[in-house]
Amino acid sequence: MVVQLPNYILERQQEFNQVLEAYINRINAPQRLKDSMLYSLEAGGKRLRPILMMTSCESYGGNAESVLPTAIALEFVHTYSLIHDDLPAMDDDNYRRGKLTNHKKFDEATAILAGDGLLTHSFTIISTDPTLSNEQKVFLIQKLSEASGPEGMVAGQLLDIQAEKSGVELNELEKIHRLKTGQLIIFAIVSGAYIGGATTKQLEALNKFAGYLGLIFQVQDDILDVTGDPDLIGKPVGSDENNFKSTFPKLLGLEGAKKQKQLYVDKAKEALRHANIKNSLLEEFTDYLSDRSY
Amino acid sequence: MVVQLPNYILERQQEFNQVLEAYINRINAPQRLKDSMLYSLEAGGKRLRPILMMTSCESYGGNAESVLPTAIALEFVHTYSLIHDDLPAMDDDNYRRGKLTNHKKFDEATAILAGDGLLTHSFTIISTDPTLSNEQKVFLIQKLSEASGPEGMVAGQLLDIQAEKSGVELNELEKIHRLKTGQLIIFAIVSGAYIGGATTKQLEALNKFAGYLGLIFQVQDDILDVTGDPDLIGKPVGSDENNFKSTFPKLLGLEGAKKQKQLYVDKAKEALRHANIKNSLLEEFTDYLSDRSY
Repeated sequence: MVVQLPNYILERQQEFNQVLEAYINRINAPQRLKDSMLYSLEAGGKRLRPILMMTSCESYGGNAESVLPTAIALEFVHTYSLIHDDLPAMDDDNYRRGKLTNHKKFDEATAILAGDGLLTHSFTIISTDPTLSNEQKVFLIQKLSEASGPEGMVAGQLLDIQAEKSGVELNELEKIHRLKTGQLIIFAIVSGAYIGGATTKQLEALNKFAGYLGLIFQVQDDILDVTGDPDLIGKPVGSDENNFKSTFPKLLGLEGAKKQKQLYVDKAKEALRHANIKNSLLEEFTDYLSDRSY
Repeated sequence: MVVQLPNYILERQQEFNQVLEAYINRINAPQRLKDSMLYSLEAGGKRLRPILMMTSCESYGGNAESVLPTAIALEFVHTYSLIHDDLPAMDDDNYRRGKLTNHKKFDEATAILAGDGLLTHSFTIISTDPTLSNEQKVFLIQKLSEASGPEGMVAGQLLDIQAEKSGVELNELEKIHRLKTGQLIIFAIVSGAYIGGATTKQLEALNKFAGYLGLIFQVQDDILDVTGDPDLIGKPVGSDENNFKSTFPKLLGLEGAKKQKQLYVDKAKEALRHANIKNSLLEEFTDYLSDRSY
């Protein structure tokens, strides 16, 4: 299979966005709540996690369409986490990707409820997916709730807030990102492969791979905050610095952060070798995320 | 089976609280997050929903113990909803049941995350319950996410906030409470009976019954806010009035609210007759909730 990754990503994005719209229209919620959920779902996300899930499924010969409901559930969870992270009590951000944050566009109460609604509805989506068996549904719900709950993403968010006050060492920064952004990326890749028919041993290798992929994604995020084009990244350069965020460049210097990223790339590719995948899409994704400019 | 309801409730409360503690201790989360979740879980709740679930299960010959994990998941969801409802952007309450609200005891960011964590972990609890079949888990997760999501409790909370600004008629007030408090009470009773082995037809009758039970609970809540003993209800009398809340006494007068409550009691008992239950516990519960003084 010879595929140009940027084209592949664009096609998958469009496929995903079309189905997403149908899922939102189906929700029977008060108009303002629905508007608020929709606003953040459509606020220009790259759909990285859903696309990784589709790619991972295809890597084992599965059909990308078969993961779409689960991918939508995952995007709901990711979107809820952004809405709550942006709240005044948390990161207090007015803009995300160049658009007003949810609580600025609506109000704080609506934003909290839109986040709660997205998170909760993700479990409705998986539990009512007509194409999955009950065994698959339970597996996916367990993994998604663990990845995003108090032992996963929510823990990472709390540790991240604490780190802004106290500062952290490299191993603690890695731990925060493994939880805060890593867990959902791991879920994307592992659950995509699971639906695609991967073995337990392959899932373990992918779990390791995806953990490094999440770190690559985060280091590059931090690097772009220093060196990126504000028009491309959708926020002013240096905003992490102003928010007292712990970042890889702050801990290691810009060159040190780049070296650390290369270390993660090497480890990711090493882990991927044990996942027995015939095509090179996930490997290409690794370089793509490492080198991305937005 | 002859049982004194207050004793029965007390026994079930103790049984539930013991198991709850084990479930919290098992969570591997950052200490502050765990403390915050635990604080609200142990802030003197009556455990109404878990007890109703146990009662409903026993009403069909099931074993009350068999619903405990699901009851704990439900109490997690209920507790999350209280934490988020109390936030400054929502009801802005400093006290609940005579104790500081979560964001006052900790801080707003921690309270938001504790709520998010409780909600998410409820789905981990059900999906990892070793005593349920996959079919049961999927049924329960679907019902719980629908009851608490953007078509259920979250919708009710949004409509409630809007009602504070605009005021509402009786049918709209009923709708708000059917969503905001009713859905979780319905889940408690229907899922308890489901685990206990009730038929689909019986579950439908219970769904109707529980809808009225939720309204009875809410009318009495509103009445107690006017006539109750502040030491017993754990908040100052008249706090709804000060919060511009729409209530049954405000719409119908105190006597009108009492009459409305009796109407719901009659309808609840009528629905219960179609549920084919041999013992009288759920009927006694109806009077108990209607006449409670706290």
